[in-house]
Amino acid sequence: MSEPSVFAVFSQFLAATAGRGVTRVAYLAVATGLAMLLVLTVDPAYEATHHWVDSLLWVCLAFFAMEWLIRLWRGFRAGRGWHYVASARGLVDAAAAVAVPLAMGFGVDPKSAWLFSVLWLLKIVPGIPGLRQLRRVIVLEARPLVSVLVLFVMVLFLASVAVYALERDGQPVAFGSLPATLWWAVVTLTTTGYGDVVPVTPLGRLVAGLVMISGLGVFGLWTGILATAFAAETRRDNFLRTWEAVSRVPFFASLGAAAIADVTQMLRMIELPTRTTIIRKGHHGDCMYFIASGEVEVELPGRKIRLGEGAFFGEMALLGNSLRSADITTTQLSRLLVLDLADFRMLMARHPDLAVTIDAEAKRRIAENN
Amino acid sequence: MSEPSVFAVFSQFLAATAGRGVTRVAYLAVATGLAMLLVLTVDPAYEATHHWVDSLLWVCLAFFAMEWLIRLWRGFRAGRGWHYVASARGLVDAAAAVAVPLAMGFGVDPKSAWLFSVLWLLKIVPGIPGLRQLRRVIVLEARPLVSVLVLFVMVLFLASVAVYALERDGQPVAFGSLPATLWWAVVTLTTTGYGDVVPVTPLGRLVAGLVMISGLGVFGLWTGILATAFAAETRRDNFLRTWEAVSRVPFFASLGAAAIADVTQMLRMIELPTRTTIIRKGHHGDCMYFIASGEVEVELPGRKIRLGEGAFFGEMALLGNSLRSADITTTQLSRLLVLDLADFRMLMARHPDLAVTIDAEAKRRIAENN
Amino acid sequence: MSEPSVFAVFSQFLAATAGRGVTRVAYLAVATGLAMLLVLTVDPAYEATHHWVDSLLWVCLAFFAMEWLIRLWRGFRAGRGWHYVASARGLVDAAAAVAVPLAMGFGVDPKSAWLFSVLWLLKIVPGIPGLRQLRRVIVLEARPLVSVLVLFVMVLFLASVAVYALERDGQPVAFGSLPATLWWAVVTLTTTGYGDVVPVTPLGRLVAGLVMISGLGVFGLWTGILATAFAAETRRDNFLRTWEAVSRVPFFASLGAAAIADVTQMLRMIELPTRTTIIRKGHHGDCMYFIASGEVEVELPGRKIRLGEGAFFGEMALLGNSLRSADITTTQLSRLLVLDLADFRMLMARHPDLAVTIDAEAKRRIAENN
Amino acid sequence: MSEPSVFAVFSQFLAATAGRGVTRVAYLAVATGLAMLLVLTVDPAYEATHHWVDSLLWVCLAFFAMEWLIRLWRGFRAGRGWHYVASARGLVDAAAAVAVPLAMGFGVDPKSAWLFSVLWLLKIVPGIPGLRQLRRVIVLEARPLVSVLVLFVMVLFLASVAVYALERDGQPVAFGSLPATLWWAVVTLTTTGYGDVVPVTPLGRLVAGLVMISGLGVFGLWTGILATAFAAETRRDNFLRTWEAVSRVPFFASLGAAAIADVTQMLRMIELPTRTTIIRKGHHGDCMYFIASGEVEVELPGRKIRLGEGAFFGEMALLGNSLRSADITTTQLSRLLVLDLADFRMLMARHPDLAVTIDAEAKRRIAENN
Repeated sequence: MSEPSVFAVFSQFLAATAGRGVTRVAYLAVATGLAMLLVLTVDPAYEATHHWVDSLLWVCLAFFAMEWLIRLWRGFRAGRGWHYVASARGLVDAAAAVAVPLAMGFGVDPKSAWLFSVLWLLKIVPGIPGLRQLRRVIVLEARPLVSVLVLFVMVLFLASVAVYALERDGQPVAFGSLPATLWWAVVTLTTTGYGDVVPVTPLGRLVAGLVMISGLGVFGLWTGILATAFAAETRRDNFLRTWEAVSRVPFFASLGAAAIADVTQMLRMIELPTRTTIIRKGHHGDCMYFIASGEVEVELPGRKIRLGEGAFFGEMALLGNSLRSADITTTQLSRLLVLDLADFRMLMARHPDLAVTIDAEAKRRIAENN
Repeated sequence: MSEPSVFAVFSQFLAATAGRGVTRVAYLAVATGLAMLLVLTVDPAYEATHHWVDSLLWVCLAFFAMEWLIRLWRGFRAGRGWHYVASARGLVDAAAAVAVPLAMGFGVDPKSAWLFSVLWLLKIVPGIPGLRQLRRVIVLEARPLVSVLVLFVMVLFLASVAVYALERDGQPVAFGSLPATLWWAVVTLTTTGYGDVVPVTPLGRLVAGLVMISGLGVFGLWTGILATAFAAETRRDNFLRTWEAVSRVPFFASLGAAAIADVTQMLRMIELPTRTTIIRKGHHGDCMYFIASGEVEVELPGRKIRLGEGAFFGEMALLGNSLRSADITTTQLSRLLVLDLADFRMLMARHPDLAVTIDAEAKRRIAENN
Repeated sequence: MSEPSVFAVFSQFLAATAGRGVTRVAYLAVATGLAMLLVLTVDPAYEATHHWVDSLLWVCLAFFAMEWLIRLWRGFRAGRGWHYVASARGLVDAAAAVAVPLAMGFGVDPKSAWLFSVLWLLKIVPGIPGLRQLRRVIVLEARPLVSVLVLFVMVLFLASVAVYALERDGQPVAFGSLPATLWWAVVTLTTTGYGDVVPVTPLGRLVAGLVMISGLGVFGLWTGILATAFAAETRRDNFLRTWEAVSRVPFFASLGAAAIADVTQMLRMIELPTRTTIIRKGHHGDCMYFIASGEVEVELPGRKIRLGEGAFFGEMALLGNSLRSADITTTQLSRLLVLDLADFRMLMARHPDLAVTIDAEAKRRIAENN
Repeated sequence: MSEPSVFAVFSQFLAATAGRGVTRVAYLAVATGLAMLLVLTVDPAYEATHHWVDSLLWVCLAFFAMEWLIRLWRGFRAGRGWHYVASARGLVDAAAAVAVPLAMGFGVDPKSAWLFSVLWLLKIVPGIPGLRQLRRVIVLEARPLVSVLVLFVMVLFLASVAVYALERDGQPVAFGSLPATLWWAVVTLTTTGYGDVVPVTPLGRLVAGLVMISGLGVFGLWTGILATAFAAETRRDNFLRTWEAVSRVPFFASLGAAAIADVTQMLRMIELPTRTTIIRKGHHGDCMYFIASGEVEVELPGRKIRLGEGAFFGEMALLGNSLRSADITTTQLSRLLVLDLADFRMLMARHPDLAVTIDAEAKRRIAENN
């Protein structure tokens, strides 16, 4: 391999930090770039610091250009170059790398050309948590959402024509043409209400009032649709994330598939980094935990016990003694399944055999600790 | 049949494109008409292009007039003429055809008369997706929605009288009469807030603050009602659309009626045009598909397999191997039933016999491909 | 009985129209009163019509005073007078009757005194449909709603003090005191945004931005709470209204109590006046009906059949033939239970014996009609 | 114990009123402090009353300082001093006690220093009902909420750069820098719309229109997320609060755990102070009550009966006779479980043995009363 050395180091860095997310360096570069862009447009601040601002912007640009080139090179080496070029990510990378230089090349003055660096912001899109969930909601509810949007546009046009007819004589500048009246209508229908353009005739105001109330209606429909879709999506997402973990906990292995599906809907999965205290002695507790992966350490008086994959803890809080009796801390990155008091009771009611197991274990532990 | 030839051609065109939807030509005519209407009201733009604008508007009007006349003629020939005339669609068609000429006939100047062409927009209403669903929501929840509206009006009036009494001395123009104060109240209660009329006395501002908070409350109630209704309606709509398809898939035929109702709630139906790639090799998959109608083509290495009505595919992604192993494309307009990973697991838990069938088929396919 | 004659007639009228609702005459009086009040405050309009306006206002006032007096008299005669006086309704009646004369008595000029007639609006409160439902929602969710309101007030005060400290030097009039700044804060937090008072310092604008975003958050919480409560309340309300009717339909009598509870959740009750056409021949149908009370008439070719309490119709639309085969009209005020296609299928799956009964009846009817 | 006497009294007061809530005296001190702060900033009002205002502010400050010192002292005596100091409550107590004196110490003029007394408001946070519920909702839905916030910021920046580029030439003051344009963007995206800064170019207005519509979308997503989470949280909260009480009512003791879980979801717990009338003779009733703790008194004609823990009443309203036949009042602080008519029917359908018990008791009571 005959890569130049900087290129090689950077390439290795990229390979090491690849995956779905966004690297920390990229977040830093985007943040720096945006901050510099803000300073750039404030004349007194820029005059005082223009060396710094310019340098940092160029460094960020160099970083993004490098990133793009290496990804291109790696893509083509892997035979998937065009695939990368045409993908959403490839397009964003390209825009981040070439938009500013291209603008400068076409003779745009530098301060304006740098405005294109706002496109760098798009690079953090893959790192937004829950974005996939949002996208699914919007895709699944596309039909009613479009329906509401069309209604929105219809109200916009009908109201604009009515108000244009009513107000153009009195306010020839503000309502002098339909496009100008559309501006008023969109400001009103979204209930933004700048107040730069306001109807003054009684009939015009009547139409405006109806437009505002329609605005509330459109908004309500919109929200109603999204709320409904979100409820379904949240349930689905949680089920998928939890299922895998549940089926790996031996405690639930004795249950049939139907019961596992049932249990999965009651559990919530959390991921905790090393050295996180999950339970604090003397605090009030209202849930128990199953260890899906990782390990925790229980600080009993005089000694420490480690619990590994498949174990559970915190069950005493659900069996009558609501004060936690020991500190419990993760020793490594761990995934835990949380069972709330409400769901615990539901679960015990439906699967009494689980109740027996948990009860026996709790008693064994109490006996052991005394 | 003794129709004139243009009429005949047009009539055949209408018959061929009839149904519930809106023809593409109608969409084009509405879009063109609205665009021309916008240009018409912008003086410099209209002066430069008035020949084009006028011609296009007349063409659109002629189209809508023709459409109306033919529908009338066909309606009366079929003995349902008056029914059509009095229907919502007939009224819209009539308004689109005669409003502008009528206005001109009554001596309105042409530029103002053309404003009635905004009514053409109503012609696309039947083509809005999901409109039926929206209407059902509004009809079913009419009682609480009206209740909120009445509360809205009551707050409006009570606040107006209070602010009128408080502000009329200080601001005799803005708050000089109750109708003028109502304008302020509606602008405030919808949280639009133009700012053209603003109370200045301390008590007036207190009332205004309460009105704004009531505005949020009204809005919240409104949205809450719509969200609730939407949730129920979406479930119902999906059930109806999916049921037919499910009962036609042989794979589910062995299930009893109760189980089919159960399965229907888990499936989502999609309709795909010809030559749409459903699954792309190497992509991550989280759902499987049943073919309700149509046909798909699987691109295996070296050969192509076609799967028809009642077949399923994509099941491997749900049985452990999440990377898709082949491209799959529709060969004709197809309706597919999508089963998500979450629902797949639920289904398998409740109907283990289905799991066996899918598993066996998956193994057969793997064996065949090797 | 020695009542004066007008009083007697009025009293009989009240007795005949009593109940929970509001009489039509009261609605008319309220509407007339409000319209006159609006005219009263518009000087040119009032000058032109002051005889009419004054007379009508006095007539309305006389009506409300009479209503109050008769209710008082009837109340005390029935021994529940003080109960009526202290009830919400009694207070509203008293306010409607005496507020205006009292104000005049205290020397308020007549035009201002009439402003109190806006209180007449409160008389229609008992007639608002679904108000009881709204009230239950608000009462049941009082705790989280108050919680959000307290958060609202806290943001209001904290933001006001911050912006007051930041802006008072630059804008000593608009932000010269905390109460003045609170006005700005409430206008901003409700996202009304009049624009009469706007921060101009960079820090002040930063705080303002945070306040606006908090506004969206408060609003979102508010709506979320109300939406949740509404969903529960709507289900409960529908269950109660439908249960009575269901248990009276013989068709469901064979079901056990558990199944009736199940069925009740699927049905929706509607009330139709005399001579309403429920089903129109040739239309597309997606629901069937059970007669809870009243009677309908089926217009078969050549003869008319009447179906009474407990009968069902429209079932063919759910058994495969989606076009309605006859017009069906109510002959008297009727309460019908509507069963949607989606729920019909669910019901048939869970209670196959009902399916057999409906199927048999449908076949019998088809045989009879041929 | 060698505490000074005031200190001792105060300490006992604190101990007596401790717990999770906020004492009434603290509420009073916060309210007084805030009211005085408002007066302080209004020059004419302050000049007239400055002795009172200053004195009351110092009294409040003294109260909060005392409270903090005693809590510190008690904390360290109990060996948990540093724990208190670092807790949220300890920090708020410290801020309330020292912020104002500290500001004065650093030479801030007194009127400005007193502004820090707005921090006293934070002391009532633990007393907000349902705040824990709100916090859980926000924590559980943190991922999608952050996701929406990031989208919000992205739209903000992209729109700002676009509008800055389009408007800076025409409006060099309002849109002269990116930070200034961000102000416009946040005012617009939250649909606040002050109107102090408004785009005037056609393209700028187009971007502004898109920003407003995005604002509605962001808002809708936000609300949808919160509504979904609230629904789940409300169910969970109610279940937990009711479970304990249900399992202590003998009437339900015969049920298995699964049935108790079922019943718990139907009941709603309310807490009533002494001498509250629960049922009023002659009123319409639609629910029955179980006494979880406390006692009620039934006013039968001629005598009074007392019902204690585990008893139920009001069942006749659900068994056909909807008018309440006696006044029923609490004799002490009581916790009641409310069973709605709708849920009563559901319950009776699923657990017919309960129906028999309630029916028998109702008959026994009727017999006894006659």
